[in-house]
Amino acid sequence: MLFRGPGLPHAPRTVRLPSPAGDEALVAIELATVCGSDVHTSLGHRVEPTPLVLGHEAVGRIVALGDPAPRYSDGRPAEVGDRVVWSLAVRCGSCDRCARGIPQKCRSLRKFGHERFQRAWELSGMFATHALLPAGSAIIPVPIDVPSSVLAPAGCGIATARAGLRAAERVVGLDGASVLVTGGGLIGLAACAMASERGAVVTLSDPAPGRRSLGLDFGATRVEDPGDRDPAAEYDVVIDASGAGSALAAGLDALAVGGAAVWIGSVFPSAPLPVAAERVVRGLATITGVHNYAPIDLEDSVAFLRRSWSRFPFAELVGARFPLDDLDSALARAAEQREVRVGVVPG
Amino acid sequence: MLFRGPGLPHAPRTVRLPSPAGDEALVAIELATVCGSDVHTSLGHRVEPTPLVLGHEAVGRIVALGDPAPRYSDGRPAEVGDRVVWSLAVRCGSCDRCARGIPQKCRSLRKFGHERFQRAWELSGMFATHALLPAGSAIIPVPIDVPSSVLAPAGCGIATARAGLRAAERVVGLDGASVLVTGGGLIGLAACAMASERGAVVTLSDPAPGRRSLGLDFGATRVEDPGDRDPAAEYDVVIDASGAGSALAAGLDALAVGGAAVWIGSVFPSAPLPVAAERVVRGLATITGVHNYAPIDLEDSVAFLRRSWSRFPFAELVGARFPLDDLDSALARAAEQREVRVGVVPG
Repeated sequence: MLFRGPGLPHAPRTVRLPSPAGDEALVAIELATVCGSDVHTSLGHRVEPTPLVLGHEAVGRIVALGDPAPRYSDGRPAEVGDRVVWSLAVRCGSCDRCARGIPQKCRSLRKFGHERFQRAWELSGMFATHALLPAGSAIIPVPIDVPSSVLAPAGCGIATARAGLRAAERVVGLDGASVLVTGGGLIGLAACAMASERGAVVTLSDPAPGRRSLGLDFGATRVEDPGDRDPAAEYDVVIDASGAGSALAAGLDALAVGGAAVWIGSVFPSAPLPVAAERVVRGLATITGVHNYAPIDLEDSVAFLRRSWSRFPFAELVGARFPLDDLDSALARAAEQREVRVGVVPG
Repeated sequence: MLFRGPGLPHAPRTVRLPSPAGDEALVAIELATVCGSDVHTSLGHRVEPTPLVLGHEAVGRIVALGDPAPRYSDGRPAEVGDRVVWSLAVRCGSCDRCARGIPQKCRSLRKFGHERFQRAWELSGMFATHALLPAGSAIIPVPIDVPSSVLAPAGCGIATARAGLRAAERVVGLDGASVLVTGGGLIGLAACAMASERGAVVTLSDPAPGRRSLGLDFGATRVEDPGDRDPAAEYDVVIDASGAGSALAAGLDALAVGGAAVWIGSVFPSAPLPVAAERVVRGLATITGVHNYAPIDLEDSVAFLRRSWSRFPFAELVGARFPLDDLDSALARAAEQREVRVGVVPG
């Protein structure tokens, strides 16, 4: 489904299924989910090159492989029929940033759902029946008994939450730590669940009562409205998944000595945040920005979902589902934010 | 020497040498050095409880030990006659912060040179003939062939520089990294030397030509006046040892994707620094505050000085030396900032 610009309906386009080259895989999409950034693009709140195939969260099955086949991180070659998720970013693997462990900022980065529709890579978005996974994709096999609604969002929001926790863990061990998560979207809820699984005591702050209620299902032991925050509360880790300046400021205020503030939500221009340097220094504070994630985060996320998907209601996060042909309705519904994720089902 | 308040001359005070209790050591000071914070206190720019014995950087020799004797980190008991340096902070070892690896923020923290003169701990500052090292001090044996001028500042500025680099190393490997150090005082110069020893390519930024010249001796391959900075230059690590808001802002601007900014110098109130959250997030930036240090940093610093003191002119950083009786002249001289450190010699 080709996105041609804000306000224009998607146009179906039929392309010939490509034969994967070496290290490539062709995947039949089982379920894609709509990320907030797809909505932003469809509404014109952010500009991507058009036309393009949107969608960067999905689960699918490998239907064709190049020679050689791409390999999973354990060295095993992918096989036709494997059920997989994959990283939204495709990296070169050889530039300085890939070498430094930040392939999500590869010098030749390409991202699913963000590339102009072009002959060289037509099936580059998940709002399609198939996706072509180029060499440099991180492909993770997933078990058949985990619902597609649990797995589809792994490749964006859930792996990003894991990247956020990994950044926090460089500074603070999560077991027994107090963690504040601001913003109860998919990233925030996944961060709550993962942190609680690691033994943290989690508070979720969100202005929406429905999201606070979800927070309790996703491992938070306390939820609060940002307007009613306890000014005496201190947290070893504060994870912002909202991007709200007020949440960033409140999070820094509430950071315990030696704590880590992880900023994930600020992916849009906003007023500069005034930061008291003396407080950062004397408080041994760490502030880390997280944007997208590395393949290890997706792998960790799949391992987490495999063992814990039934403990937290991930399967219920995908509310309405729409057929691929009715993608415009899916995006309109996602814009209403009635549920955490809207599903798109091909065929 | 008792500090009684800004503008008042120090008063000599004779006390009976204490018999160390278990895990305590009595040290005869060989050389103490004057830290910038001693000057700030003596000028009334910051308030400490008076009267007190200032001074928290020194090297000395153990002259008496409690039973049991304190142990070095390798488990070996201290012995009378050992030449040692010690941590400026005395920690309880059992509170949550000590347990979390930030003993410099111990809930029952005491600091040499910062405690009101009192019977329970009279010899609590280095501007004295002797210091009593309470249980909870980190004591590090030092070789006899390293000059006292190299070792005395280890317990404050040099170990703090090491703490700063350790914070950076949580994010970025130093070997081959580009490092900008802003502020060429003891911390900044030590950071230059330690980073260059680890294989980093170091730039020192300082408005004072004399400090820039020193930077080249301490491992920087490039020095610059902050007013002439290269707007295109990017650094994997930026370490601020100046506390200047302009340096913090310039450092964040110059931070490479995935880089670490370490703030050390901001130990005084200053205007809030405007931080662009989106840049932090998309740039995978980390900002870390460092204040004082953990015992491991002092240990690493002693190991560094042991192998590299002759490669960098640490011995020349201590310029003028004054007898302990003339401490007021030493502080006045230090306030002129003509040299990186002024020495104070007992007896």
